[in-house]
Amino acid sequence: MSDYRIAIVGATGAVGTKMKEMLETSSLPIKEVKFLASIRSVGKKISFRDKLYEIEELKASSFEEMDIALFSAGGSISEVYAKEAVKRGCVVIDNTSAFRMSEGVPLVVPEVNKEALRQHQGIIANPNCSTIQMMVALEPIRKKYGLERVIVSTYQAVSGAGISAINELKQQAQDMLDEKTTIEANVLPCSGDKKHFPLAFNALAQIDVFSDEGYTNEEWKMINETKKIMSDDELKVTATCVRVPVMSGHSESVYIELKESDVTVADIQAVLSEAPGIILEDNPDEQLYPQPLNSVGKKEVFVGRIRQDLDVKKGFHLWVVSDNLLKGAAWNSVQIAETMHEMNLLKNK
Amino acid sequence: MSDYRIAIVGATGAVGTKMKEMLETSSLPIKEVKFLASIRSVGKKISFRDKLYEIEELKASSFEEMDIALFSAGGSISEVYAKEAVKRGCVVIDNTSAFRMSEGVPLVVPEVNKEALRQHQGIIANPNCSTIQMMVALEPIRKKYGLERVIVSTYQAVSGAGISAINELKQQAQDMLDEKTTIEANVLPCSGDKKHFPLAFNALAQIDVFSDEGYTNEEWKMINETKKIMSDDELKVTATCVRVPVMSGHSESVYIELKESDVTVADIQAVLSEAPGIILEDNPDEQLYPQPLNSVGKKEVFVGRIRQDLDVKKGFHLWVVSDNLLKGAAWNSVQIAETMHEMNLLKNK
Repeated sequence: MSDYRIAIVGATGAVGTKMKEMLETSSLPIKEVKFLASIRSVGKKISFRDKLYEIEELKASSFEEMDIALFSAGGSISEVYAKEAVKRGCVVIDNTSAFRMSEGVPLVVPEVNKEALRQHQGIIANPNCSTIQMMVALEPIRKKYGLERVIVSTYQAVSGAGISAINELKQQAQDMLDEKTTIEANVLPCSGDKKHFPLAFNALAQIDVFSDEGYTNEEWKMINETKKIMSDDELKVTATCVRVPVMSGHSESVYIELKESDVTVADIQAVLSEAPGIILEDNPDEQLYPQPLNSVGKKEVFVGRIRQDLDVKKGFHLWVVSDNLLKGAAWNSVQIAETMHEMNLLKNK
Repeated sequence: MSDYRIAIVGATGAVGTKMKEMLETSSLPIKEVKFLASIRSVGKKISFRDKLYEIEELKASSFEEMDIALFSAGGSISEVYAKEAVKRGCVVIDNTSAFRMSEGVPLVVPEVNKEALRQHQGIIANPNCSTIQMMVALEPIRKKYGLERVIVSTYQAVSGAGISAINELKQQAQDMLDEKTTIEANVLPCSGDKKHFPLAFNALAQIDVFSDEGYTNEEWKMINETKKIMSDDELKVTATCVRVPVMSGHSESVYIELKESDVTVADIQAVLSEAPGIILEDNPDEQLYPQPLNSVGKKEVFVGRIRQDLDVKKGFHLWVVSDNLLKGAAWNSVQIAETMHEMNLLKNK
């Protein structure tokens, strides 16, 4: 009865490829998969659990026989096709920002707010990569000690900007090592913006386009999504989002202020060491702290460098790292599907 | 009368090389230069203003005929030889951390606290690279509006760890681009520590060794040096220091809280645009913000992404970038010498 037919929209992308991998090892009972992409990729073969599939062209009718659709082909594709999929009885788990802040669309990190899934009306939004890992790290602390304020500075990997950005960074790095005088930049910091800058051996304090108050869209996403996921409009959140020359694995320097007093570093370590989806890597004596390079291919969020602020007793600093393509995107999406299955929120046709 | 004889200690290092370059174009009247290094480099030739000099072995007697000595050969060398130089009548400008927190040793960023130079007893300390650029950016704001609190997360380049670290990063980057399975790491994050990790396409939340309260020495330097330079023990400062795969150019995500209310982003931009040693690069509409790659070879500190905190009215965020080898080290040292000359604090034998 409950074997699902699942479509991946944007199957050839950086995230789509990882969605396939996450589904291959998923506990979700799967009857059929369908790989959808733009006309360019149609006919290419993708293997799934030892079977070869041909990539099909994305059309409204693609969803007719499907139960679940995982979207990661850009916001404009989701805006057009997510509703078509829902009309045809699909549950959509959308990895773009198209519906994240829409009312009636649960924005879900399973470790944090899976109960919100019960309110879905067909579309569930997967939060922004940099938001997800911060939520996993902060929710257990918030639940136990209350959370007053968050200030985050990110160190974000290039894979969040897609395969073309990964290739651009590789080419730039090679050209710089070869001491070429001209370094080409056509994608980063943001493919939709006017100017492009090299990222290799550089750091770009712009992710997505600029918006209100001098903040970028990426920064607004972290701010607004955090409040929605934690259901706390009063929570103080500010973000500075920076792209660094890392292939995969986002890092975050997070400052928090708790509501409760008299909390120690050991208390926070104890809470996090038992929290779901977290690996505590926090031992200065052994130089143990999370590193983006070590996070690649892992589903967990790594937390370390936990320190009390030197001036504000309720203030703490954390270093939070995770594979942005997995927990930040593909794994969180598949995990939402698994969670919905466990909660009996999925049907099949 | 006032033509100086200047020695550079550590002349072959990443900073020593830049000290030579800064002296070559300096306004300081120079009669003679002496390049000192370890026995390994003795006999090698260095050109200075079209004249060739042989590197000499560092000895106590090296300073006998010298007026000024610029040290950048590691703390242990400074500990032994700085006092020998002072005994012989030299003014020492020391770029290591050996004497920075010592009483009677001015810790100077000329734009901020040049008056402290009058109290010197032979040794003047050059602050830590990441501290200097933050001081240049924050002092004009502090002077006008008062400063209550600083939280900084750094994105530090590898050249601060010396030439061996630069070469290691290049080799690691090439090996990773070539998809080699073993990536060697023998220097970073900190040559004096037990374990070494790759920095290429990675981010390491450790600079220098770990110390009290889970903070690294680099973090303590930023905290303690800031209070000393600004002569404000009550100032709240906390730092998270992170090495990123950038060759030169430190970046900093700085959060500040002012004492005064009703300050706007435009006010801060106006103050910084007229402040010494600062180039304001802050125009989101034109995607103008500081980039470490663009800072290389420049003496100034670049400031941009100035935003009001979304929750705390007196809170502001800044992105501060500078060439760590120049303003962060060699230029600040030579600038101290120029400033002392202008203040009539230098003598020659």
